[in-house]
Amino acid sequence: MATIKVHGVPDSPAVARVLVCLYEKELDFELVPVDFKTAENKKEPFISLNPFGLLPALEDGDAKMFESRAITNYLAQEYADKGTQLIHTSGKEMAEMLVWMEVESLHFGSMFRIFAREAIINPLRGLPTDTALLEETKAKLSNILDVYEARLAQSKYLGGDTFTLADLHHIPTISFLMNKSWKDLFDSETRPHVNAWVAAITSRPAWAKVLALRDKY
Amino acid sequence: MATIKVHGVPDSPAVARVLVCLYEKELDFELVPVDFKTAENKKEPFISLNPFGLLPALEDGDAKMFESRAITNYLAQEYADKGTQLIHTSGKEMAEMLVWMEVESLHFGSMFRIFAREAIINPLRGLPTDTALLEETKAKLSNILDVYEARLAQSKYLGGDTFTLADLHHIPTISFLMNKSWKDLFDSETRPHVNAWVAAITSRPAWAKVLALRDKY
Repeated sequence: MATIKVHGVPDSPAVARVLVCLYEKELDFELVPVDFKTAENKKEPFISLNPFGLLPALEDGDAKMFESRAITNYLAQEYADKGTQLIHTSGKEMAEMLVWMEVESLHFGSMFRIFAREAIINPLRGLPTDTALLEETKAKLSNILDVYEARLAQSKYLGGDTFTLADLHHIPTISFLMNKSWKDLFDSETRPHVNAWVAAITSRPAWAKVLALRDKY
Repeated sequence: MATIKVHGVPDSPAVARVLVCLYEKELDFELVPVDFKTAENKKEPFISLNPFGLLPALEDGDAKMFESRAITNYLAQEYADKGTQLIHTSGKEMAEMLVWMEVESLHFGSMFRIFAREAIINPLRGLPTDTALLEETKAKLSNILDVYEARLAQSKYLGGDTFTLADLHHIPTISFLMNKSWKDLFDSETRPHVNAWVAAITSRPAWAKVLALRDKY
């Protein structure tokens, strides 16, 4: 088997999403750093891997991919017999997992992307932060997390009784927010089930390995 | 087998995405109309099916779901032996399909959602349309479609040589845009491969059945 190559840097939440999945699946890989300070991600050879110029990209033999959630889905299905089983493959369990994977991508993820742009990327580029939009986004994310709280009062994980991609996809973005001013959204007093779930998914050994990898880059 | 129930109206692109999938899979279903003019989607009993109050929702025995792409994914996997095979399940083919499913949801879809809000929903609600944002969004979608053109010059469908969910997910939104002022984005002179692909996916018998169903509601 050819070595899996991940193009990106572990600081990027999207790259970290792929890395935590690789560690859960106990798959060997090579990390190929992409320097986005010099916009390497907008030039060849990276742009041939992802025409949108966004991190990460992955090569696994003749499979060449981009988009972090497509990659984790691929790894979970292609390497079903390795490491942690990260997907349900039929019936009600699969239905619930698929629903919460979409909620992460479209509801939670949309709010995170606005946060990242306004609070992180714009300041780095010397662009203004739209603080009104940021406040509105935080309020919307708060409402979304109320739905999570109700779900997690009934189910240990979002996708059911076991840890799946529906949970894994949140780890890098929630860890990011927990280190920032939005930490209060995950308070144990306001949302005890969300708080316990965050503690469970961010304390997984696979995530500790991603954090250790970050220290090297 | 209990009858599959779809909650929604066929005019909604997200509901139509589920309906075209059901027709491709040759699955019987019952359509349960939800009147969003009276905000039925924000009240019980609908809100118990989808706490975010968005169309569609689906019931299939004890599987209760929302989010159109989660539903199509579920139908394609759960009913793999029925109707059109809409997914690849291993290797390079699966990898490519998964990538283009994400591109639809996050790149194309994000632009469509801004279009729908600014050009359709806001006017209906008596809210102003942000024409500058709309122009910026059209320019971004144009760049995205350049990536599609390059892809479709190499591959008959987005996910490979056969029609998959990566294509199907676009049908209702592209049909919607083709009836509006953004039709020129899909011109045969500017983007011949995109134009041919749009013609192929929107001329499928399953889509004609959705259009016929619309006439009844």
